[in-house]
Amino acid sequence: MTLNPQRTLGELKALRALTGDEHGAQRVAFTETWLAARAFLKERLDALPVEQHQDAAGNYWATLKGESERELLIGGHLDSVPNGGWLDGCLNVLAGLEVLRRLSEQYGGRPPVTVRLVDWADEEGARFGRSLYGSSAASGHLDVAEVSKLHDKDGVSLKDALAKVGVKLDDAPQARQELKNAAAYLELHIEQGPVLEGLGLPLGAVAGTVGVERHTLTFHGQAAHSGSTPMNVRKDAFLAAGRFGQEIYAIAARHGGVCTIGSVKTLPGIVTSVVETCEITLDQRHLDAGKLAAMWQDAQQAATRFAQEGGCTVNFGYLWKIEPIPFHSELIDACEAAILEVTPTAHRLPSGPLHDAAEVARAGVPTVMLFVQSLRGISHNKIEDTLEEHLALCVVALDKLADKAIGWIEGRA
Amino acid sequence: MTLNPQRTLGELKALRALTGDEHGAQRVAFTETWLAARAFLKERLDALPVEQHQDAAGNYWATLKGESERELLIGGHLDSVPNGGWLDGCLNVLAGLEVLRRLSEQYGGRPPVTVRLVDWADEEGARFGRSLYGSSAASGHLDVAEVSKLHDKDGVSLKDALAKVGVKLDDAPQARQELKNAAAYLELHIEQGPVLEGLGLPLGAVAGTVGVERHTLTFHGQAAHSGSTPMNVRKDAFLAAGRFGQEIYAIAARHGGVCTIGSVKTLPGIVTSVVETCEITLDQRHLDAGKLAAMWQDAQQAATRFAQEGGCTVNFGYLWKIEPIPFHSELIDACEAAILEVTPTAHRLPSGPLHDAAEVARAGVPTVMLFVQSLRGISHNKIEDTLEEHLALCVVALDKLADKAIGWIEGRA
Repeated sequence: MTLNPQRTLGELKALRALTGDEHGAQRVAFTETWLAARAFLKERLDALPVEQHQDAAGNYWATLKGESERELLIGGHLDSVPNGGWLDGCLNVLAGLEVLRRLSEQYGGRPPVTVRLVDWADEEGARFGRSLYGSSAASGHLDVAEVSKLHDKDGVSLKDALAKVGVKLDDAPQARQELKNAAAYLELHIEQGPVLEGLGLPLGAVAGTVGVERHTLTFHGQAAHSGSTPMNVRKDAFLAAGRFGQEIYAIAARHGGVCTIGSVKTLPGIVTSVVETCEITLDQRHLDAGKLAAMWQDAQQAATRFAQEGGCTVNFGYLWKIEPIPFHSELIDACEAAILEVTPTAHRLPSGPLHDAAEVARAGVPTVMLFVQSLRGISHNKIEDTLEEHLALCVVALDKLADKAIGWIEGRA
Repeated sequence: MTLNPQRTLGELKALRALTGDEHGAQRVAFTETWLAARAFLKERLDALPVEQHQDAAGNYWATLKGESERELLIGGHLDSVPNGGWLDGCLNVLAGLEVLRRLSEQYGGRPPVTVRLVDWADEEGARFGRSLYGSSAASGHLDVAEVSKLHDKDGVSLKDALAKVGVKLDDAPQARQELKNAAAYLELHIEQGPVLEGLGLPLGAVAGTVGVERHTLTFHGQAAHSGSTPMNVRKDAFLAAGRFGQEIYAIAARHGGVCTIGSVKTLPGIVTSVVETCEITLDQRHLDAGKLAAMWQDAQQAATRFAQEGGCTVNFGYLWKIEPIPFHSELIDACEAAILEVTPTAHRLPSGPLHDAAEVARAGVPTVMLFVQSLRGISHNKIEDTLEEHLALCVVALDKLADKAIGWIEGRA
């Protein structure tokens, strides 16, 4: 009957020892090290009265049959980026394992609703450049023709990598059936950002994953000799881009989102010439679709104005976009309530990064995520860390959230 | 007795036909095409009572002996960049040839002072990356050990390229003796900038070549996820660099010089991360050494302030510098007087690009340059051009300047 968060801490450390090295976690999807992590999980699940199987896409499921066929899903991912952190993804799975143990014990192997733990395959996309592979197969958003073209840096295709772990890529969409009885989905994750640490809070309820608008902006001016061209006749593409680099802070503040210029390239890019072409990338994110669209509008207007004022022009190129995916309002409330049972203050925040939870929510399953504070906001790096007391606290909060979610599922029956 | 500027125009076009193609001029130093240009010059010099020789560095001299051993030098360079313009360098030589013809004819082969035409070797440095090769050998500023290391993109050393045209690199410093009787040096050149065109003037007297301070500025911030990092905690190296990109316009205006950011590099340089490191190049130029130093001081202060205000730091790296090289005030006056004999308005301006004249001036020879307007300020490109009426006018002005310089040399004897 007793939840043991210290056991989860011990298992996290054991998994780190098994699947990490001096550069960090090495659980890249479909590798031997990733298989070792799965074996580590299976060994522990074998002690529970759960049915286990790998689905058609390569996700791993453990099912604790309940009184009802309606299912509470708890998910995470054992895979990591190369040289990754010790918590990203596997905290979710191992905390879920502990909740499964507690529920199994409390209800004598048969809880009121069916409870399933899922280890999603290749959340990170670190090897083939396609993140959320397994969860998108389950949500119906995997384009098999598209991902059939993917290869890793050694030339191995995704198809061949999957075949080695017993998955036929063409069958992956059949994973869709895993969600047919899903009534709620919970996912714990480290925040991977500095918000909770800045507020001095261990836990947060996630309101959804933000929408993203990703574009290139290419400012065109005129190359001119650095020695012979007076300042007042220059058409300096970098001047316009630099002014825009400041303006994104005003745009983000106006709408309450985030804007990032991540890459800047200059042509001809030589010390003796005014910049003719300056190409930048712009990544904009907001939880509200309307405000996201307004941020992109503002960005285009500002870039056009700065270009014109400097005798330049600007072109816009599309890179990628995804709509905001709000989580379920009643489950967000339940998550806040669970947090308030273990700590005096709850905080609601959007998730900037995407997660498997976004795919599950897109498939129509009521979803919520629980964030635990990240130290220094750093992830995807061996120095990724969270205070041990916060790790213990998040296991307890996830457990309480699971109880609330079971009650919520029963109430909707 | 008659100067014939139309002949110079015809020779410029003939040389273009001989040494250019559909991509522009191809008179890269020490190539077959460059040798063809030299043969074109020699063929014309052979018709004059001049002594001709290639000096120890590969510069080509034609000497019209005068009553005095004191020498008026007129210089230029037949070499071009690859795909270069039809005027840069060879206008100077062919206009000088026409002046030599006129002087020879007027004085029956023996002018009051000795007059010499020089075609400097490899002014452009396009092949080996070292500009002003021949004139720096004559001025005593060529470091043979240093340039011995130079190779072109095909792996041919400067030494071997020189050997093919009959020059021993180790002997190049002996070219110093060519300047021992030099009393004045004149050089005509296209402006290669937009100043005279902007003023609607065909000709300008050059006050000197500007000094250059060339540095890298590296702003260091912190990489952070574009989705999970609030704007107010970012340490965005590009924000600081972009603000600095505007500030150089204020710095240049304050001191009356020019400042250029030519290259911008970002790390990690990916769409999903705040910029951790932004390295820019800064090229600053001014005719006044004190103001040049003040511009660099201001740049460092501004960069440091923008870095600090954004939670970043900045490092400064040295790339290259050269002091301003003012021309001779009495010869600048003479140049303006010559201009005023052919057009109503003279204008005095600094040269942003370096020229062989700077090396000659550094060697202590009283020097001045005459600029003729460039269309669109464009050079080093096949669209480089100057109105034919302006080309004719500059030949006349150079001729008048030569007379004034001869008088000036006689007056100082």
